[in-house]
Amino acid sequence: MDNRKLVLHGRLGAKEGKRDALAASLLKAAAAMESVAACRLYVVSTAESDSNGVWVTEIWDSAEDHAASLGRPETKALIAATMPLIAELPERALKLGLVGGKAPR
Amino acid sequence: MDNRKLVLHGRLGAKEGKRDALAASLLKAAAAMESVAACRLYVVSTAESDSNGVWVTEIWDSAEDHAASLGRPETKALIAATMPLIAELPERALKLGLVGGKAPR
Repeated sequence: MDNRKLVLHGRLGAKEGKRDALAASLLKAAAAMESVAACRLYVVSTAESDSNGVWVTEIWDSAEDHAASLGRPETKALIAATMPLIAELPERALKLGLVGGKAPR
Repeated sequence: MDNRKLVLHGRLGAKEGKRDALAASLLKAAAAMESVAACRLYVVSTAESDSNGVWVTEIWDSAEDHAASLGRPETKALIAATMPLIAELPERALKLGLVGGKAPR
């Protein structure tokens, strides 16, 4: 990846009946990102047609900023709390480089 | 889709050698969205590992706002100008409902 902003997009599969709990846990991660300036976007979505899927879409100033966030104790604790709700990790998680557009600055 | 914000995410496949032109054309669409309040995010991304793909990720206040934007003459002109650059329309374009997160307000 070059020095462009990083776009991450992936689907997490919740354990049966745990989709709402997984979404709620990921919203806690999103709330923690409010104070992380290098995280420009962290949104949690679901689809009517997929009763277990939860999508996370993120924009980071750089791959390094994202990697650094994963090392924060708060992030590690959130990941540890979220993992028991997850049945499937992203198969085709996308790591993209932002070209531009209408985005938080 | 209910009354939640709409998240759209899909990959367009450019004709051979046209990826940069396609991205530039989509950036024009993104620029046109700067004045559309109901469009909260419209970003264009590419991946090192995919020499033809261009991803568009959008957040709209509602599905109706998105549908209305497709009917604007400016949007129709941009779509008409972009189509000749596209070899593959999205196979698995995602239409998701935003649950929440750190996002443009």
